[in-house]
Amino acid sequence: MKSFKTPKTKVQRLPSRGHYDEETIFRILDAGFLCHVAFEIDHQPYIIPTAYGRNQNTLFLHGSAKNRMLKHLKNGAPAAISITHLDGLVLARSTFNSSMNYRSVVILATGKEVTQKDEKIEALRLITEQIIPQRWEEARIPDDDELKATMVLSFQIDEASAKIRTGPPGDKASDYALDIWAGVLPLNIQYAEPVNDPKLRAGIAVPKSVLQAIQNGIT
Amino acid sequence: MKSFKTPKTKVQRLPSRGHYDEETIFRILDAGFLCHVAFEIDHQPYIIPTAYGRNQNTLFLHGSAKNRMLKHLKNGAPAAISITHLDGLVLARSTFNSSMNYRSVVILATGKEVTQKDEKIEALRLITEQIIPQRWEEARIPDDDELKATMVLSFQIDEASAKIRTGPPGDKASDYALDIWAGVLPLNIQYAEPVNDPKLRAGIAVPKSVLQAIQNGIT
Repeated sequence: MKSFKTPKTKVQRLPSRGHYDEETIFRILDAGFLCHVAFEIDHQPYIIPTAYGRNQNTLFLHGSAKNRMLKHLKNGAPAAISITHLDGLVLARSTFNSSMNYRSVVILATGKEVTQKDEKIEALRLITEQIIPQRWEEARIPDDDELKATMVLSFQIDEASAKIRTGPPGDKASDYALDIWAGVLPLNIQYAEPVNDPKLRAGIAVPKSVLQAIQNGIT
Repeated sequence: MKSFKTPKTKVQRLPSRGHYDEETIFRILDAGFLCHVAFEIDHQPYIIPTAYGRNQNTLFLHGSAKNRMLKHLKNGAPAAISITHLDGLVLARSTFNSSMNYRSVVILATGKEVTQKDEKIEALRLITEQIIPQRWEEARIPDDDELKATMVLSFQIDEASAKIRTGPPGDKASDYALDIWAGVLPLNIQYAEPVNDPKLRAGIAVPKSVLQAIQNGIT
């Protein structure tokens, strides 16, 4: 199985939590749609939250053609892209051993602009479907002017690592005798009831994409 | 009122979504406890999710004394710290005008190690209380060995920006006639039922901190 482990992506602290296989990394990517992208200009790091899409080992970002981050990254400047799912608070008897349960991925990659029209539309479809499956078929898809106003970058995933923590707290042996509650407080992300656009025309029902998103929740 | 706007933190795209005042920025910081920290080594950006605490205009991060990021940042290397709350999917009639509702802050700052014992304990208390209020009083707080094994960095917040989007989608005038649903799908983060540590001694009830966290939810 393909491994994304490299000297730069090897998990340094608590190496037992590190994973580098495609399956684990893609599963974490597919469970979300929001990433944080870090880049640097003149040794000043910047960081921006944005949506992503994935096809095999390619990650796509998009934004305005005037977007400063995308304009910087399209020329091959290195980026670090992080996807983090917080699953719960791990409350040990000591604050020192308290932690969080999470699944996270960091990708180190360089961007390349997607300019070919079909590829650009397909990348935008992947991003939309990552956020809310089936929406692409329901909505009006981009016209030529909108495509021109949108920049899409692709990042090949070659260097990456996942970090996962699950399960109960691990306390110091002597702490188990303490009269202190310990356990996990799990955290769930759910969609609430959809809110119609105040300008929605009469007789248009909440669509399949939204109903399914509510049913499936966010993992 | 204090402004954190600087040339580097001025919001470039959609400037109307940018905010720089202390009140807005602190409110967004106080609504969460997880940030993403970006830093760079030899022009390679890195990014790591971690917990934070705040006291006035100082942000605290902590971790193992062996943590590579903290060791790098304690010497004054610049960091970018991002806190993002996703509030909902904004589903316009077109994919082009679809968006997200969110509250996010980016801080550009340099770290400084907190070495004085009382200050270090106070910073750790602030981080714990940021994650789950009242837990510090319930749990066993760090002893000298644990303090030694923990590194705490402080970041003075001088350069920062917030970006906020709220409300319904904004569609292109001609799109309002389309037979397509539009609206907002709000997103909620909630705690589920706490899971006792399998090694919990009999007779220890779920504590106040956990009950209150469940009741208050995450904003």
